[in-house]
Amino acid sequence: MYNQKPMVNINSQPFVPSYNPTQISVEPQLAQNMPNQRYDYNSMAQYATPAPDLYYQQAQAAHYQPLQYHLYAPLPPHKMSLLPYQRTVQGFFLSDNIREELQRKSEASLQILPTSGLPESLDVYYSLVPLDTNAERSNRVFGYPSWIYKAFSKSDGNTYALRRLEGFKLADEKSIATVQQWRRLSNASMVTLFEAFTTRAFGDNSIIFVYDYHPLSSTLFDTHFGPGARYPVVRNANGQIGPSVPEQVLWSYLVQLSSALKTIHAANLAARVMDPSKIILTSKMRVRLSAMGIMDVVGGSVSKEAMQMLQLEDLVNLGRLILSIACNNQSIISMGSSVSLQLISKNLDFTGKFYSVGLKNALAYLLASTSTPVSAESGINNVDDFVHMIAPYYQQNLNSSLHYQDSLESELSREVENGRLVRLLCKFNFINERPEYDHDPAWSETGDRYLLKLFRDYVFHQTDENGHPVVDLGHVLRSLNKLDAGVDEKVMLVSRDEQSCLIVSYKELKSCVDVVFRDLCRPNG
Amino acid sequence: MYNQKPMVNINSQPFVPSYNPTQISVEPQLAQNMPNQRYDYNSMAQYATPAPDLYYQQAQAAHYQPLQYHLYAPLPPHKMSLLPYQRTVQGFFLSDNIREELQRKSEASLQILPTSGLPESLDVYYSLVPLDTNAERSNRVFGYPSWIYKAFSKSDGNTYALRRLEGFKLADEKSIATVQQWRRLSNASMVTLFEAFTTRAFGDNSIIFVYDYHPLSSTLFDTHFGPGARYPVVRNANGQIGPSVPEQVLWSYLVQLSSALKTIHAANLAARVMDPSKIILTSKMRVRLSAMGIMDVVGGSVSKEAMQMLQLEDLVNLGRLILSIACNNQSIISMGSSVSLQLISKNLDFTGKFYSVGLKNALAYLLASTSTPVSAESGINNVDDFVHMIAPYYQQNLNSSLHYQDSLESELSREVENGRLVRLLCKFNFINERPEYDHDPAWSETGDRYLLKLFRDYVFHQTDENGHPVVDLGHVLRSLNKLDAGVDEKVMLVSRDEQSCLIVSYKELKSCVDVVFRDLCRPNG
Repeated sequence: MYNQKPMVNINSQPFVPSYNPTQISVEPQLAQNMPNQRYDYNSMAQYATPAPDLYYQQAQAAHYQPLQYHLYAPLPPHKMSLLPYQRTVQGFFLSDNIREELQRKSEASLQILPTSGLPESLDVYYSLVPLDTNAERSNRVFGYPSWIYKAFSKSDGNTYALRRLEGFKLADEKSIATVQQWRRLSNASMVTLFEAFTTRAFGDNSIIFVYDYHPLSSTLFDTHFGPGARYPVVRNANGQIGPSVPEQVLWSYLVQLSSALKTIHAANLAARVMDPSKIILTSKMRVRLSAMGIMDVVGGSVSKEAMQMLQLEDLVNLGRLILSIACNNQSIISMGSSVSLQLISKNLDFTGKFYSVGLKNALAYLLASTSTPVSAESGINNVDDFVHMIAPYYQQNLNSSLHYQDSLESELSREVENGRLVRLLCKFNFINERPEYDHDPAWSETGDRYLLKLFRDYVFHQTDENGHPVVDLGHVLRSLNKLDAGVDEKVMLVSRDEQSCLIVSYKELKSCVDVVFRDLCRPNG
Repeated sequence: MYNQKPMVNINSQPFVPSYNPTQISVEPQLAQNMPNQRYDYNSMAQYATPAPDLYYQQAQAAHYQPLQYHLYAPLPPHKMSLLPYQRTVQGFFLSDNIREELQRKSEASLQILPTSGLPESLDVYYSLVPLDTNAERSNRVFGYPSWIYKAFSKSDGNTYALRRLEGFKLADEKSIATVQQWRRLSNASMVTLFEAFTTRAFGDNSIIFVYDYHPLSSTLFDTHFGPGARYPVVRNANGQIGPSVPEQVLWSYLVQLSSALKTIHAANLAARVMDPSKIILTSKMRVRLSAMGIMDVVGGSVSKEAMQMLQLEDLVNLGRLILSIACNNQSIISMGSSVSLQLISKNLDFTGKFYSVGLKNALAYLLASTSTPVSAESGINNVDDFVHMIAPYYQQNLNSSLHYQDSLESELSREVENGRLVRLLCKFNFINERPEYDHDPAWSETGDRYLLKLFRDYVFHQTDENGHPVVDLGHVLRSLNKLDAGVDEKVMLVSRDEQSCLIVSYKELKSCVDVVFRDLCRPNG
């Protein structure tokens, strides 16, 4: 019954704190309750290198053996080694607490309202939750009062944002066809439009536009002009307003929004809506044009020449948007096209005074977009030329984005295997010591279930030579991962009365788990 | 003893398959063994909305209550809704199997060699593993034979790549000071240099340069010219070589490498090494300049004028690199500066024939970088002008990168809570049914431990009205998360003999777990 492999005596195994702190990230409040979890750099050496007697085994293990999968290693670039002033590059896109943000986003996605007074369902969409309860209803942007709801889709289970225009009657079926054009556009700085349909479910003629739902996003209006604005207004001693939004932020908006416009204009479309209340921030510094495609349906189809005019208007509107944010002056936008040249030029001067010349020039270029070229050789302003103009800021934003990618991959690599372990642990708990078989010795005291019970003891219930419990998460993770991989390595299981022992391979144990769990799940018990 | 809350009778609870398929990603081989896990769009509605009797509870739950944290929701943009041809945008940076890649990277980071014949440690670095065993040793690039090793650092536990130049004797201590300048640069398309030191540990005079270690990276040389090249050479009917590398890939290299050069040149430094064997691909489409800073130490300090020449050489070398990859012609690089103008122009013609004019022009610009400007108004070629020139491709790459960010955030959001659940499940298993207390009724049959045992039964060992086991992962996750959050909600626990029942809050149960687990971890048992 004994085997050539080194024996493991469960009763005399010394306490080896081989828990690797990087394997599972530990929240502070839980860390207090777990031993050996403080991230101590000076003592990490012992965790990162296996003990010498494991060397031979390791050398034999071929590359990519699944049993090593649980030994997580931090990916570069290593944050620890970043100097303080380098952090800004990463921090530019990176949320300060990505985990908390993801949790809150998930929660917002799943939020429902029990009694909203809204229709139970619209087409395949149900569980409507109004997203803009506080906004006053006006026809300023679309010409019709508009509402926005979050809803689940029956067809794919995802959440979507439904924008409803109230009292709109579709005159021409053809004008809804542009939605197909919008559907094909893919730009990371634009909220994707999926479909549009008319409905009488609200008791009126409404048209619904279906978009990706980005949880916890806020509009540029709320971020910069709302009551809880992100960048409080700075005033100098004379009460004059100074610049409050960092130039880097303005450039990032310009880069992302011009990137969206480039995709839109290349498809012979125009954004038409560039209102701060319809542009959303979906995370710290990710800005997306929303409400695209609505004006094409509401305003009817447009000739080629008119489309070029609309594209020029997009550029002017982008210029006005950034100018109003830079100067903290809402009136530039709220006045629409009736804004005076004098106000524009006064605010451009302000920009030139407090920000770089490059920013002022970029805004001046956008604001001067008309169908008559400034000079013969310059041609009519267009977004392609603008992208060339601000290329250094594209480089800067690409660099930030790639840095953020590295951080996200590094975060993900720390979590990638935990889902598998959760499922395996749950299976164990479903199987072991079921009360309904308390009096049935055949259930968990013989055969496969008995093996699993002993293995459970081996994994969790070891004691050291003094009879003290061994609480070693490293041992647990190693054992469970070997089990999940079903490796050929053998393990000696000792019965509770220490009178018998069984030597089984992880492979056999794995098939035990499969068989027993399948038994458990069979409808006839 | 009874409470106003709705009762849960563990023996008669109907089987409700409320497992949400998006909560934990399931590997195919495991999915077979778990019931109710097929991703069925048409039946998802019932999972996404809680049952009607839960509405009231949900409405009462304030926003951001931790108990909802485990209800993961997929983040937009939804991959399912992407049209086939849109996938390329995301797929550009996205690895086809991000999870597998992360696992393999982790494994590569942790690999060790038992008997390498290398020094046991170098400064704070130990466990050296040679990374370029197959490469022939030549002084072509640095003027000295060079080696590269992976090693762990004692000071922070991370892995680093150590590049060693053999037989190098530091003549001037000052020249090693430029390493400090390199250390300060932060660019996502460049491998960060941390420090350099001389050592006699190899039995000679060696100098070691310490970089971030990027696991599983391959060099551009291996990717394009090595035996297992990624893009096999395409020949037409006449045996002539056609283009094999997609233009998008060439642009991505140009964008990333010029981004690195921009950062380097802005710091008054020059890359000096642009060899395909020293540029690495760290994931599908992420390219990074490595071996930076070595030539500054080896070649000694450089005057301001000489630095400008070196920067111009960087541009020419970048042009040669991309040209050689586009035309699959190694000789353009291996001949170094002695490459004939004729060969260059022949290959440029090839590029113009099979790729866009824009690419040919970009390469021609790089290759024509000399200290004499082409015309009076154009000025001397520089990387800033080049970035302006290829701005549309910066826009394209930024868009791809932002899309990839979205995908990574979405992946991460699905895993973010699993680590916490693994720890909680392990605690449970450490506590329940320990064999050493088999005969001690005080251990797990009274007080806190008894409560936890009953709670374990409540979570895992429920049966339906026919006495069949209820295997409901949704119930498990909900219960464990409520426990972890320590909410005030109460739960009724029934003893195994059904003779008594206890009503406790999750809050009380949470403190039970804490107390009992602390007991278990106390050194004196």
